[in-house]
Amino acid sequence: MLKLYYATGTCALATYMTLEEAGADYSAERLSFKDNQQNSPDYLAINPKGRVPALVTDRGVLTETPAMLAYIAQTFPKAKLAPLDDPFDFAQVQSFNSYLCSTVHINHAHKMRGARWATEESSFADMKAKVPQTMGACFKLIEEKMFRGPWVMGDQFTICDPYLYTLSTWLEGDSVDINATPKIADHFKRMSDRPAVRKVMAAQKA
Amino acid sequence: MLKLYYATGTCALATYMTLEEAGADYSAERLSFKDNQQNSPDYLAINPKGRVPALVTDRGVLTETPAMLAYIAQTFPKAKLAPLDDPFDFAQVQSFNSYLCSTVHINHAHKMRGARWATEESSFADMKAKVPQTMGACFKLIEEKMFRGPWVMGDQFTICDPYLYTLSTWLEGDSVDINATPKIADHFKRMSDRPAVRKVMAAQKA
Repeated sequence: MLKLYYATGTCALATYMTLEEAGADYSAERLSFKDNQQNSPDYLAINPKGRVPALVTDRGVLTETPAMLAYIAQTFPKAKLAPLDDPFDFAQVQSFNSYLCSTVHINHAHKMRGARWATEESSFADMKAKVPQTMGACFKLIEEKMFRGPWVMGDQFTICDPYLYTLSTWLEGDSVDINATPKIADHFKRMSDRPAVRKVMAAQKA
Repeated sequence: MLKLYYATGTCALATYMTLEEAGADYSAERLSFKDNQQNSPDYLAINPKGRVPALVTDRGVLTETPAMLAYIAQTFPKAKLAPLDDPFDFAQVQSFNSYLCSTVHINHAHKMRGARWATEESSFADMKAKVPQTMGACFKLIEEKMFRGPWVMGDQFTICDPYLYTLSTWLEGDSVDINATPKIADHFKRMSDRPAVRKVMAAQKA
């Protein structure tokens, strides 16, 4: 059985939702960032990066959201969560998820995690102040150049959708108006109504 | 035929080397960052992100290094550049590449690209000063927890190797002593001797 380590409000929710969408047999264990559980010796033995998510499988531990999402799509092919038989289409899915991971998530992280990249309080404040602009620009680019509709990749729901949704939940806190990107705002509403998403959003707050 | 857009000294070299290792029929076009060619209207029509690499295929354009590397591995299976038939092993390859993309490359980017995330010169200097520490910590983690040897994933050379090598070429400029991570230092030497790597390193400087 698969076991997911996650924390409330983090990108780990994308994997959580994808496991649920896939119909996987899994358990989810919440870590408290407030109590710094991600840096406990027990958890560092699972994921030496001290981050979430981590997915424990029968073969070993996987980390990094784009890798985990592709893994779930490949191991639950009946759920049709990615175009597994077409390398170009699959690469487009991966490209979208890599952009979320390495650009969008990173921009967001500069609001609260400035200490990863700088030392001075003034730098943290400076970084934090720019987040609405960088996150707004990313979502505008997604809306105009990447999002096909009704789902990210078009007619087929894929692993891109829970990942985009997860990052969309951060917009309000980042002072970005989701309605400035109407296609993504509509996607957010439709995602919120999916049983898998409702279940995970309720579970992570319980 | 495939066409790669790259710039000297960037992560695009990982894709360039992988195309060469795969024996692909491709051309490579260099952009000058000094002349801001990555933001020219012609290039933005190819890659609206204004970044390299971009890989033009018969089906359309691909961006984001981890997606492009997996695509090359999947479309040139005889080159055996990834464990394509084992979703768990493939996920480990993808996890490694995602870490390089979203953590290691990002740390490096804070040396010269601080304006992506902040506004003040003092913040840029603060970010720049921390790069040796963050890059050193990443390479220590790779050395101790990820790198299997003789190649990143063990006996089999994969798409992780040119990507790690590409980021290793940044260490000297980032004031990180590669010899602090002897396995990676040895990997760097062996990679430097590969014909594909020599060819690309020469071509990008020519």
